[in-house]
Amino acid sequence: MSRSGLFVSFEGIDGSGKSTQARMLADRLRATGQDVVLTREPGGSPGAEEIRALVLQGDPDRWSAETEILLFTAARRDHLERTIRPALEAGKVVICDRFADSTRMYQGLSRGNLRAKVDALHDLMIGVEPDLTLLIDMDPEIGLSRAKARNTVEERFEDFGASLQEAMRAGFLALAKEYADRFRVIDGARDTDTVAEDVWAAVSPHLT
Amino acid sequence: MSRSGLFVSFEGIDGSGKSTQARMLADRLRATGQDVVLTREPGGSPGAEEIRALVLQGDPDRWSAETEILLFTAARRDHLERTIRPALEAGKVVICDRFADSTRMYQGLSRGNLRAKVDALHDLMIGVEPDLTLLIDMDPEIGLSRAKARNTVEERFEDFGASLQEAMRAGFLALAKEYADRFRVIDGARDTDTVAEDVWAAVSPHLT
Repeated sequence: MSRSGLFVSFEGIDGSGKSTQARMLADRLRATGQDVVLTREPGGSPGAEEIRALVLQGDPDRWSAETEILLFTAARRDHLERTIRPALEAGKVVICDRFADSTRMYQGLSRGNLRAKVDALHDLMIGVEPDLTLLIDMDPEIGLSRAKARNTVEERFEDFGASLQEAMRAGFLALAKEYADRFRVIDGARDTDTVAEDVWAAVSPHLT
Repeated sequence: MSRSGLFVSFEGIDGSGKSTQARMLADRLRATGQDVVLTREPGGSPGAEEIRALVLQGDPDRWSAETEILLFTAARRDHLERTIRPALEAGKVVICDRFADSTRMYQGLSRGNLRAKVDALHDLMIGVEPDLTLLIDMDPEIGLSRAKARNTVEERFEDFGASLQEAMRAGFLALAKEYADRFRVIDGARDTDTVAEDVWAAVSPHLT
């Protein structure tokens, strides 16, 4: 993919504050005159949002883990083609709340160790990684109470309990080591503005 | 997959009469006391039917070829898990109106030569072939006029015109050579009962 923009993703367990940080980063970049596309997964394009609705609503067992990773990969492909790639080719900064690392974590580890299938699907149909991935790391006890306070309709992904959230945190930290060249781990348990300063310190060297 | 039933698929260009032949075969098998599941793709399970609706309705360009093969593979995985595999494990005869060969043909050849990606996705996420595939072969001029007479809502797949239908026919015949061990080519231009006799002659030796 020919691209001249910057592709930044945020990752972390539910309630880690990554969506807030993504919005704050977008605001700060816009204030400096950058052209920013703030997007999220699953979803991020009209087609991908329809697939997102199909995956996340209804009985948690309506899709097997394998069908789910196919649907997430279909949504990601659409999001990449319709939203991310055109923005990068136009030189914009793309900030994405979750990308492929979330699938590696949630579907790869939590639902039957499908990591090898997730990776093979990614290599075959996506093939793109962010330039920079910011892992907002946090004790899951704090993250879980924040997520429950939000009470979103998609709580199936937030209803795993503390021990699984602890495994998720460890899984994200393991991904940060595996892809150390693009990951930065940021302590998300501090106050929002302090976390945002660390986010800015990680992103600003990448700006042209 | 452990299975004791029989998995028969029908393939062919639109208007070839394969759906009629699939129904006639199901009726004849039931009359002989066989337990039959008659199904179709895309679709064939509640989840797969929802994915089918997402793919087939709306603007023909709403999905790229790559996103489309991911969605079809997701639907096939659900159909396999929820409908086909349980029936085969219960010893039933599964008759499927289109299966993976249609994806190999339509998405693999007609939309940008994605056959290698279609095959890799199939090997990774499906991995099952029918025991017997009946290709109802026909001059596309005849098939196209039959399909147009039906005037279905999913006409985007039937609106390719005669020259592309000719390429499709050649593509199916090439698949029949590639998978000669499970394909049987049946001349579909004859009257329905004559075609049905050839179908029965191909299927009945497989019955236990």
